[in-house]
Formats: sequence, structure tokens, C-alpha cells
Amino acid sequence: MEQAARNDDDVTRISDEEIFAAHEGGKLTVGSTSPLDTARALSIAYTPGVAKVSRAIAADPKLAARYTWAHRLVAVVSDGTAVLGLGDIGPRASLPVMEGKSALFKAYGGLDSIPIVLDTTDVDEIVETLVRLRPTFGAVNLEDVSAPRCFELERRLIEALDCPVMHDDQHGTAIVVLAALRGACTVLRRDIEPLKVVVAGAGAAGVACAKILLAAGVADITMIDSKGVVYAGRDGLNRVKIELAALTNPRGLTGELADALVGSDVFLGLSAATVPEDAVARMAPGGIVFALSNPDPEIHPDVAARHAAIVATGRSDFPNQINNVLAFPGIFRGALDAGARRITERMKLAAADAIVSVVADELAPDRIVPSPLDPRVGPAVAAAVADAATAEGVTI
Amino acid sequence: MEQAARNDDDVTRISDEEIFAAHEGGKLTVGSTSPLDTARALSIAYTPGVAKVSRAIAADPKLAARYTWAHRLVAVVSDGTAVLGLGDIGPRASLPVMEGKSALFKAYGGLDSIPIVLDTTDVDEIVETLVRLRPTFGAVNLEDVSAPRCFELERRLIEALDCPVMHDDQHGTAIVVLAALRGACTVLRRDIEPLKVVVAGAGAAGVACAKILLAAGVADITMIDSKGVVYAGRDGLNRVKIELAALTNPRGLTGELADALVGSDVFLGLSAATVPEDAVARMAPGGIVFALSNPDPEIHPDVAARHAAIVATGRSDFPNQINNVLAFPGIFRGALDAGARRITERMKLAAADAIVSVVADELAPDRIVPSPLDPRVGPAVAAAVADAATAEGVTI
Repeated sequence: MEQAARNDDDVTRISDEEIFAAHEGGKLTVGSTSPLDTARALSIAYTPGVAKVSRAIAADPKLAARYTWAHRLVAVVSDGTAVLGLGDIGPRASLPVMEGKSALFKAYGGLDSIPIVLDTTDVDEIVETLVRLRPTFGAVNLEDVSAPRCFELERRLIEALDCPVMHDDQHGTAIVVLAALRGACTVLRRDIEPLKVVVAGAGAAGVACAKILLAAGVADITMIDSKGVVYAGRDGLNRVKIELAALTNPRGLTGELADALVGSDVFLGLSAATVPEDAVARMAPGGIVFALSNPDPEIHPDVAARHAAIVATGRSDFPNQINNVLAFPGIFRGALDAGARRITERMKLAAADAIVSVVADELAPDRIVPSPLDPRVGPAVAAAVADAATAEGVTI
Repeated sequence: MEQAARNDDDVTRISDEEIFAAHEGGKLTVGSTSPLDTARALSIAYTPGVAKVSRAIAADPKLAARYTWAHRLVAVVSDGTAVLGLGDIGPRASLPVMEGKSALFKAYGGLDSIPIVLDTTDVDEIVETLVRLRPTFGAVNLEDVSAPRCFELERRLIEALDCPVMHDDQHGTAIVVLAALRGACTVLRRDIEPLKVVVAGAGAAGVACAKILLAAGVADITMIDSKGVVYAGRDGLNRVKIELAALTNPRGLTGELADALVGSDVFLGLSAATVPEDAVARMAPGGIVFALSNPDPEIHPDVAARHAAIVATGRSDFPNQINNVLAFPGIFRGALDAGARRITERMKLAAADAIVSVVADELAPDRIVPSPLDPRVGPAVAAAVADAATAEGVTI
């Protein structure tokens, strides 16, 4: 089964014809929850019956949460500036990705969602637009917005909107990485806090991963960007990296990725960089390598496995696939189920715990997280996130 | 069957419990066009396969029309300022109506659509917002926007967006009214051009009906608003009514509705006004009464029938229901099928002809238009509208 999946799933064996045919006409469809083929059905769902429902909501706006789809609808919002590994390809070209995201929300979270692709990259304008659209949806999944704009955009949307907002490229990735690291630590019988972690990539995902690992108690994190180790006082750091430098790198390292990797316990790759085998070989024994760059991992997992105890990638054709779909459907589902007004750090940590809990009895070096296709994950994450929201009192 | 429908459809016999239960959780659902339950399916619809599609669209933006759902997606846009007979109830309370509209687009036009309800009533802001959202959809159905703002808003959206835009409360109503009037004329063996038509209501629907009837060759139209007959030079006319006064009322009438009705051939009611029986009795013999106010027609159809040869209402529980659903699904479907950049007068006239053509062989005094449930209407309208768009050269 595992072997069959690996072969069947090798995208090099899927023809372009098959891929394009599957996207013909788009991948989403909107339907009505009940048929409208009789006069009676029309009178209930549309005029004159609908007027009673509209009048009731006008009198008591809280009823909108009960009698419209908006309170369970996720807007998948992008400006197309940082799409997959493709970069700034614009909103139209990003739409196939957003449609796929909406399809995943339905398949793994049971949530309705609509792609909203914007013909502006101005943070003020995006915030203003979503504020005007606010009655249309119940939550915002920001997607594929370039760093460092994505940090300000997410912060301002959280301030401006009284509903869950999450930039999935940041927090979805961070949550699944934390889940995977917890799974790996359980397999290796190690604690997470004393690990020396090197994060290659200080973009959206790298920054969020560093922050969630700090929140989880990891004290020694070293961030690497295109200029090497991020350290306080390095020339030309932007505001986000100045903050990062202050929170990470407790040993005051400088130099390159290879320097930082010497004696480290965890390599977390979130860039398109290549990591040579000899650099991984100089990590501490029994280490952990998450080479998450797609489609080409920073180091081939079979090569990394010569030196590391546990290896994960973002790919479906190797073991230990670290895929955001393990997180975002359940997180939004749980937040919306609980009526949460925002997604907190505690909810994110609860989601990570829930992901790994699903395979608690099945953990192994090649099974540190559930399969992205595992139907138990979404409901488990949703329940944990809803509980955390309720406990924290961020619900309506 | 007709009788059964009349009884079954009487909304007074539908309980509030049943209506509210049908709206619980909203009336729409988004699904994916193919299942995402295998690693192979994920690799095709999402990463890494989707990257090939996104890259292709980035290289050739025209491919977005083929490989995304946007080019066939209708945005049902409202600010909630003129909802049904309820008036300005705001965007949240309007959403059940917009969901119903989306459901009708699917049921009768085979089109996907999404409700967009806006927390602003400022025309500049609505235009700006939809321009930013442009890559998200393929057409805009404006809905339940108050007059006279709706006229400026529609005009400016048509200028700003390179896709079909139509305010359905104006043109959908006008198209079905024209279709019904053509049907009535055929039954009565009368020509449409010499009819004396009195239109009660100079809001969105009234203005659009007057204009489409003028375009169809009707020369003698008298408009009535809350202050009586609209005539050139009347005190306090707004810009829209000044234009109306110049186009209508060739006999220079003044006075009230009852004055204008004397000797007229057609009464078209599009207001919440009540028309007394004696006013209808003074119309010319063999007249036509369309009492379209909902849920209470301007005059009860049984009373009107004592004096008029043909009577129609907006209600499903009387014969000759004049319902926009006969028009809008097919119009947008036809426009999108043809790749039309806008919806022209010629396309609207073609839609009216197509509606009545469906029942050309079945026309009778109690059957001047097809039933709103008639599945032949949407495809017939779509084909006629697409042909008109192609003939007129407004396609991409």
C-alpha cells in the first residue's frame, strides 16, 4: 500500500495532459443544499419565504451565523505574489492553487470556502477590501503572499477583522513542523527543549517555524537566510529579521549554513537552497533532517538518511511527508465550530499536539506524522482547536 | 398539476419552522469537481501538479479562462440597500437572498456563483472593491441595490470591468416583462408598438422596463412615481427622472395614476402602491394588467381579470408568473458561453424573444410566459444571448 502509493504518486509519471485535463474549467463547483425544482421549494428558499429569514436577521444580526453560510465560509485570499515555488505570478495564475486549497478545505475539514484573488499587492488596499467583504465570509486563509509584506498584512487583518485570520504559509507550515518534531522526539526518546535547531530560510514559513518552536520551549534556534546566519547587528536586516535575531541565535553564531550545522540536532529546510552531504554529516549524531523544499528537497532524503536518524520531506513519494493539509482544514474548522474570533498561539500548539496524537501508537522513524490523507486528522485537530479556543475565551 | 402547484405553493401554508429550517447553515455548498482522496489525485489537483497549470497561465493569461473556474463564475453582489420588499436591511440580512440567487444560477443556468455582500454603500468604494476582485470572477450580477444609486453603480461597473455586468432588478425584470408583453400581444393578436403603457414605479425596475419597451418600439409610455405622473419640468425630478420624462409621456400627461390609466392598454405595476378596481375599469377594453408587486400585487388578479383580457403577477400561486429567474440564468450563461465582455441591449431583447419562444405553441391568456420551473427556458435564453453577442461582436 505504501509502496503502491509511492509509485502511483510519482508526479513524473503523471502526464501533463492528465494534469491539464483535470484543471479544465476549474476545480470547484457551487451547489445548493436542497433542490429548487418545485414551486414550493422556490417559495421556501427564495421569494417569498426568504424574506422572513432576511427580516429576522435584520432584527437580530446574530442570526446571520445560523441562517447563512458565511459563518462557516473560509475566504482563501491571495495576491499571487509568492505562489508555490513559482514566485510572483499574479492573481490569475495563482487561482488554480487557491481552487485546490478550497477543495482541500472541503475534503479534509468539511468546510465551504471560496478563492478570492486580488488585483492589488498594496497592504492597505487588501485590508480595506477584506473589511468591505467582511459580511461575505467567516474566516480568512491568507495564501501565497510574499514576505515581508505577509507579516504586516496578517497582523493588520487580525486587527481589522473580528474573525479567524491565518496566513497558512506561515502557521500551517509551523504547526505541522512542530507536530513532526514532536513525533520525531517521541521516536528518538528525546526532549524537544534542548535541541539545537538550524532553520534555513527566513521567509514566511521560516519565521513562523522559529516562533512556534520558541513557544514550544526550544531555546537554541539559528536562522539562515540568503546571506548566512541571522545575527543581531548584521548589516541590512529588515524589521522582521531584527526581531528574529533578538529571539534566536543564543550562541551568537555567524557564518554560513554549513557552519551553523556543525553539532546541531535538527536541520529544518524551508528554502530552495541545496545542502551538501558533508554539512549534514557534521550534525550531531542521531539528528533530524526536515528538507521541506518542493519539489526538490534541500538534500535527497536517502542521502540525508546516511547521517540522520529521522528524515522528512514535503513530498508525497517519500516517508514522513510534512504537508500543511494536516493543519489548516482542522484549524479553521475548530475555530469556526467554537465561534472563535481569532486563532491564538495556544490554538496552534493544540493543533500540533492533535496531529501527532493521531499516530501516537504508530510512531516510527518513517512515520512521525500521519499521512495527509488520514481522515482522522481533520476532526482531531478541529476538536483540539475548538477546545483551546473555548478554554482561552476567544469565542464570541 | 397546475392546480396542485397552486395549492402546494401557497406560502401561507408553509410554516415559519419549515422556512427557517431550510435556511439553517445557509443554502450553498462548495465542492470539488473530482475527489481528493488519493496521493495521486492530490499530486494532480494540488502540489506539485498544479504548479504546471499556474506556470502556464502566468506565461499566457488567456489560459485562465480555460483552467480556472473564474471565467464561468458569477459574483452575486449586493450592499443590501433594497432587498425584496424589505428595503435597506444591510448586507448580512441580504445574504439569504443572495444565496438563493446563487442556487438559482446553478439550477437554471448551470453556472457557479458566489454571493458577495458588501459592508459599504459608497458607489466609489463598491466599484473599487470589484475592480480589485476582478480576477476572482467572470461576471457580476448586481442585486438589490437601491435607486438611484443603482443606475450610477451599474454604469460605472460596466465601464470599469471587462466582463458582463447586469443589475438584475433592472434588466432581469425588464426582459421578462417584455417577454410577457410579447406573449400577451400574440395571444390578443395585437402589435406591441401602438400600446399605451402606464408604468407605476420609477425605481430600478420601472426605469429599466420603460427603456426596454422603448427599445422594443413602444412609443407611448407614462411613468408614475410617488408624486404622480412623471413629466418634463415637474419640480424636484432627479437626473434619472429628468431623462425619463424626456423619453416618455408623449401626450404630456399630468396628474395621478388613475388619470393616466384612463384609456390605456397596459398597466405595469412595479411599486408597492394599491390600484383601485375603478381605475383599472377605465382602461381601454381588452387591456393587459401586470401587477408585479410582491407579495401583494397592486390589484388582486381576480379583480383585475374582471376588466382586463390578460393578467399577470409576480406570484407563483397565480397564472402568468413574471419572475426574473426566466431571464438572469440564461443571460449570464449565454454571455459567458460567448465570451462576451458586456451585456448589450440587443442581447437583452434577444433574451426576451427567447423566453416567449419557448411557449410559442402553448400561448394562452393564462400562459403568456413559461413557468419559472420550465427547464427549456435557460438553455433557450443562453443560446439566443450567445448568438446576439457573437453577432454584435462584443466577444473577446
